[in-house]
Amino acid sequence: MSKLKMGIIGLGRMGMEHAKHIAANAGQVEALAACALDDGQLAVAKELGFKAVYKDYKEMLDKEDIEAIIVASPTDLHTEMCAYILQHPKKIHIFCEKPLDMNVNDETESMKIYNLVKQADVVFQIGFNRRMDKQYRAAYEQIQEGKIGDPQVVKITSRDPFVISIDLIKRIGGLLVDFTTYDFDMARYMMGSNIKEVYAKGGVLIEPKLKEVDDIDTLALVLEFENGTFGLIDNSRQAVYGYDVRVEVFGSEGMLKVENVNKSAVEYYNKDNAQLKNPLPIFMERYEEAYISEMDSFIQSVKSGTPVVCSIEDVILAQRAAAAGLESLRTGKPVRVNNEF
Amino acid sequence: MSKLKMGIIGLGRMGMEHAKHIAANAGQVEALAACALDDGQLAVAKELGFKAVYKDYKEMLDKEDIEAIIVASPTDLHTEMCAYILQHPKKIHIFCEKPLDMNVNDETESMKIYNLVKQADVVFQIGFNRRMDKQYRAAYEQIQEGKIGDPQVVKITSRDPFVISIDLIKRIGGLLVDFTTYDFDMARYMMGSNIKEVYAKGGVLIEPKLKEVDDIDTLALVLEFENGTFGLIDNSRQAVYGYDVRVEVFGSEGMLKVENVNKSAVEYYNKDNAQLKNPLPIFMERYEEAYISEMDSFIQSVKSGTPVVCSIEDVILAQRAAAAGLESLRTGKPVRVNNEF
Amino acid sequence: MSKLKMGIIGLGRMGMEHAKHIAANAGQVEALAACALDDGQLAVAKELGFKAVYKDYKEMLDKEDIEAIIVASPTDLHTEMCAYILQHPKKIHIFCEKPLDMNVNDETESMKIYNLVKQADVVFQIGFNRRMDKQYRAAYEQIQEGKIGDPQVVKITSRDPFVISIDLIKRIGGLLVDFTTYDFDMARYMMGSNIKEVYAKGGVLIEPKLKEVDDIDTLALVLEFENGTFGLIDNSRQAVYGYDVRVEVFGSEGMLKVENVNKSAVEYYNKDNAQLKNPLPIFMERYEEAYISEMDSFIQSVKSGTPVVCSIEDVILAQRAAAAGLESLRTGKPVRVNNEF
Amino acid sequence: MSKLKMGIIGLGRMGMEHAKHIAANAGQVEALAACALDDGQLAVAKELGFKAVYKDYKEMLDKEDIEAIIVASPTDLHTEMCAYILQHPKKIHIFCEKPLDMNVNDETESMKIYNLVKQADVVFQIGFNRRMDKQYRAAYEQIQEGKIGDPQVVKITSRDPFVISIDLIKRIGGLLVDFTTYDFDMARYMMGSNIKEVYAKGGVLIEPKLKEVDDIDTLALVLEFENGTFGLIDNSRQAVYGYDVRVEVFGSEGMLKVENVNKSAVEYYNKDNAQLKNPLPIFMERYEEAYISEMDSFIQSVKSGTPVVCSIEDVILAQRAAAAGLESLRTGKPVRVNNEF
Repeated sequence: MSKLKMGIIGLGRMGMEHAKHIAANAGQVEALAACALDDGQLAVAKELGFKAVYKDYKEMLDKEDIEAIIVASPTDLHTEMCAYILQHPKKIHIFCEKPLDMNVNDETESMKIYNLVKQADVVFQIGFNRRMDKQYRAAYEQIQEGKIGDPQVVKITSRDPFVISIDLIKRIGGLLVDFTTYDFDMARYMMGSNIKEVYAKGGVLIEPKLKEVDDIDTLALVLEFENGTFGLIDNSRQAVYGYDVRVEVFGSEGMLKVENVNKSAVEYYNKDNAQLKNPLPIFMERYEEAYISEMDSFIQSVKSGTPVVCSIEDVILAQRAAAAGLESLRTGKPVRVNNEF
Repeated sequence: MSKLKMGIIGLGRMGMEHAKHIAANAGQVEALAACALDDGQLAVAKELGFKAVYKDYKEMLDKEDIEAIIVASPTDLHTEMCAYILQHPKKIHIFCEKPLDMNVNDETESMKIYNLVKQADVVFQIGFNRRMDKQYRAAYEQIQEGKIGDPQVVKITSRDPFVISIDLIKRIGGLLVDFTTYDFDMARYMMGSNIKEVYAKGGVLIEPKLKEVDDIDTLALVLEFENGTFGLIDNSRQAVYGYDVRVEVFGSEGMLKVENVNKSAVEYYNKDNAQLKNPLPIFMERYEEAYISEMDSFIQSVKSGTPVVCSIEDVILAQRAAAAGLESLRTGKPVRVNNEF
Repeated sequence: MSKLKMGIIGLGRMGMEHAKHIAANAGQVEALAACALDDGQLAVAKELGFKAVYKDYKEMLDKEDIEAIIVASPTDLHTEMCAYILQHPKKIHIFCEKPLDMNVNDETESMKIYNLVKQADVVFQIGFNRRMDKQYRAAYEQIQEGKIGDPQVVKITSRDPFVISIDLIKRIGGLLVDFTTYDFDMARYMMGSNIKEVYAKGGVLIEPKLKEVDDIDTLALVLEFENGTFGLIDNSRQAVYGYDVRVEVFGSEGMLKVENVNKSAVEYYNKDNAQLKNPLPIFMERYEEAYISEMDSFIQSVKSGTPVVCSIEDVILAQRAAAAGLESLRTGKPVRVNNEF
Repeated sequence: MSKLKMGIIGLGRMGMEHAKHIAANAGQVEALAACALDDGQLAVAKELGFKAVYKDYKEMLDKEDIEAIIVASPTDLHTEMCAYILQHPKKIHIFCEKPLDMNVNDETESMKIYNLVKQADVVFQIGFNRRMDKQYRAAYEQIQEGKIGDPQVVKITSRDPFVISIDLIKRIGGLLVDFTTYDFDMARYMMGSNIKEVYAKGGVLIEPKLKEVDDIDTLALVLEFENGTFGLIDNSRQAVYGYDVRVEVFGSEGMLKVENVNKSAVEYYNKDNAQLKNPLPIFMERYEEAYISEMDSFIQSVKSGTPVVCSIEDVILAQRAAAAGLESLRTGKPVRVNNEF
């Protein structure tokens, strides 16, 4: 089978991660072109083996024979770029980082993309990488096999190791948009049901500066799913002991727990206590393999027509849950989520 | 120091447990008298070493020189009996099983006891045994020492191994009253703050018969505490793998987890997987030591005047949280808790 | 069934432990008489409920109608006392603490007891309590059920939390006699085969004073069993992190591990690491339940004729393995063990 | 800094692993040439990006400007090839897979290489990859920092998931040579002392065919180190539950355990028990990162002159311990190891 000709827009933290993986996947992919504004990033892309580099993504699309593209630009450019690509005369498959649109309270732009995707005959995948993480995937598959009977309650804890900068929050969204959307998507994925209602309590317990951007650092949510089951999510921007993400699904015939991943197998005992190394310092190391797997999965969907692991509907529903969470925080009331398209 | 002359009312499951412990504590206690309606239970009490047995607790109080009494009768008799004892001419210290009153929606009876306790010069302790469980106690003490900085989020999971009978529910109360009150109390205890608001979602996912008594078997709650921190509780009446109670407190400087207690240290590996024994089958085995510790603590409070581990205020506040939870289930709205007396 | 009339000789650390348990077992046992040299110990025995106390065990045997006796005197008195009891006109069942005789290099005294036991129609049980510990017992039973196929290798680690005093060593024996005999017995028990050969390496790495009594504090052994399988044992007199005993049995179809028992379920995470409490500080707490179980088992053997959990043969074979270990240390060669009687 | 021009001899299981890593390390290495007898393997090497491929390693050395070479040919060719390379007019650094020579009973060939290495001004590293595994490395570093005080006992368990073929054994050596050498090296590494004496017990408990090649499948060893400390090793060719390697170092101030690595964080509870996934199926997955790290370390030694992680002395001392083990099995006696050069 011929190699997939791929391009990438955006070479920031996540973009560079993807760029490395497609450059290293020479058996399946031809790393055709990369686009970024920064000269240093473009130089790295060339070193990684990208044949051409651009500062203008429209020019790249015109000049290069790209079959599939990764949109890893800042979140506020996602919808504009996806819209342009989807309307381009060339047929180009898209892998777009999450979320599709920061502005979860007004989904005009997201629905525009939704409609374009529905009209276009292309593969469109969203980068909710956790769905492809082998730990969650293993739990998901056991649930699908009926190992825990009917799922009844899902519990998700997600904690970042440190508060991200105000500047970054402005570009990628606040806690509910940038961070909790992962958990909303994971909750739907594990429970096999849409979120019907969100009730959120949150506040600023860690970093007072977050109030400047109307954001919070600590969050507790209760979810009700359409099938009558329940979910609990808690988030924090700062776990001093490291990155901490755990998922537990409780069902009529058993329970599946995905414990926080700790790559250390070393135990140390002294006169005071028994010690283990802390969890991983940050999500990049935690999900290293998942980033590769989601890209492999995208390439397979393009080549073989298998359904995408995470669709445009999935991201829009996660964004709607985030919007409901924001409204719940504002109003102090539980908020219904519309899951219709 | 002279031995404490103790009596007990009620020799059911919990009553008999307490009866055994005070009978075995011959160094500190004189097991003076026991009261129950059942002849078989009274025979066991005699065998355990109780000097006298009665079917009428009022007669027992008149005839025996009891200094401290355990009220372990069915929940619906707690307030009536406590009121009688508190108004008895003899000064009698009381250890009363939880909850004080099943009828959490109308606290007339509970407040009557509250007022009697405030007027009387006696020790009055409530049997929230988990406060004296050495696991939770160890976590609690580390929080007090500042080991996790400021607590920000508490998470409690409590799951029973099987649905109790409709008959038993009628006598001891539904999920929120009989079961979640433990968690409300634990949440307050760990966070060092009163519960300000409760939002509850719940339903019948396991045993349809529970609808007959307007009860539920699955529950998810979000709490807000008066100091601005948050809590999540999830409950189930049936974990097929055994009794499962876990508490996690997350703070600015660290996290304390009390994992579910599993008394097995045996690991078995075969070609299929690695296996551990399931958790304990039921709460009696889990809290065996805590039942002894809470009684020791009560005896110490009587003898030395140390503050009780769990006061009348504590149980009333847990009952108010349960009432708020019930109202939240009914109305679909978050409900404020009044913590004033 | 009538209560078993029991007596006890020796009220030191282990003796007092047994005395408490039989005194607390009023349903099955009549705590008839206790013998010790120390007035304080005898006073405690009286408080525990023993009807009579003696300083001379022969007098106790003559005066009291004892049916079963616990021999918990210093090790160097075990054989003399057992011989006397076994030759007493009264038929008296014996539970004797381990080892039977400290002098493992000359088994004249042990074999004298062996012959007396064989002639007498009494129950004779040795206090290798670990056989009745529920953790090892659970592993043992799974091996018996064939869960790991044919056992091939047993690994035992036993470490004490601190070096015991030279005086105590003089009375109870050195590392191989007092401590490793437990492991020899456990190894035979788990593997279902006698020890054929012992090779031992050891030295003084911790406490130089041990050289005064020709003892060691650190020991590593390889065993070969009669059925062609193998064992490894390592011992230390001082694990600074607490008492550490682990057993692992590897077989053709799987592995069973009994991890060190840690009664704490609390995990603490801070910016430095994740911490658990250390293991238990000393064996008394670790085996609390096993001491009760072995006594229950002895009483059952007396009452119902069930085979004893640990026989005179078992202790003599453990002593022979210890003798082989001592010879191996002296000669630097592997030493055969005679398992014939 | 200029790229290191590297070649490789042998593209079997380990050779191909190394070939991939150096091909993927384009920033540091120029993958100049690969040599193998098999056309298919050479085709893969070309695809990986090796500029030239050869069937004759001597021709490759003559024609290509190789600065550093990986010797991953069958074990019985290691010494011949290393000797040729070390005597080649070009100065070529060598990374040679372990062991240096299967024939541990006669070290003529190994010592010939030793002498050539001592005369040559080249880097010579042996592929004991475990030294660079991040788990063992973390333990090693903590020992170096004094975290456990003076090491007193090392325990190593190494079990393969299935018996390798008789053919493979003929080419790579029996249990003690191919497998236990890793443990001898790890034991020396952790304890910081040479092995003074080996006592070995072993047999055929799993695969009777091994007797044809005078090999065994089950092994238990006791080691004494030159500094007076002790070690225990147990090996099996077939753990039905997967690859199992654990290292424990016990010292005067604490203990470090490297538990078996299990990359699954998923726990499953049902009515029967709690289940975890088995350990990894085979060593390749376990040590994936260690293979990269040892190669990075070799490249760094070549470029910067840092000492190699595993030297010619290290491998010869591990081979001498294996020879001692074989003699101990033959004679039934403990055998001294000569650690002089």
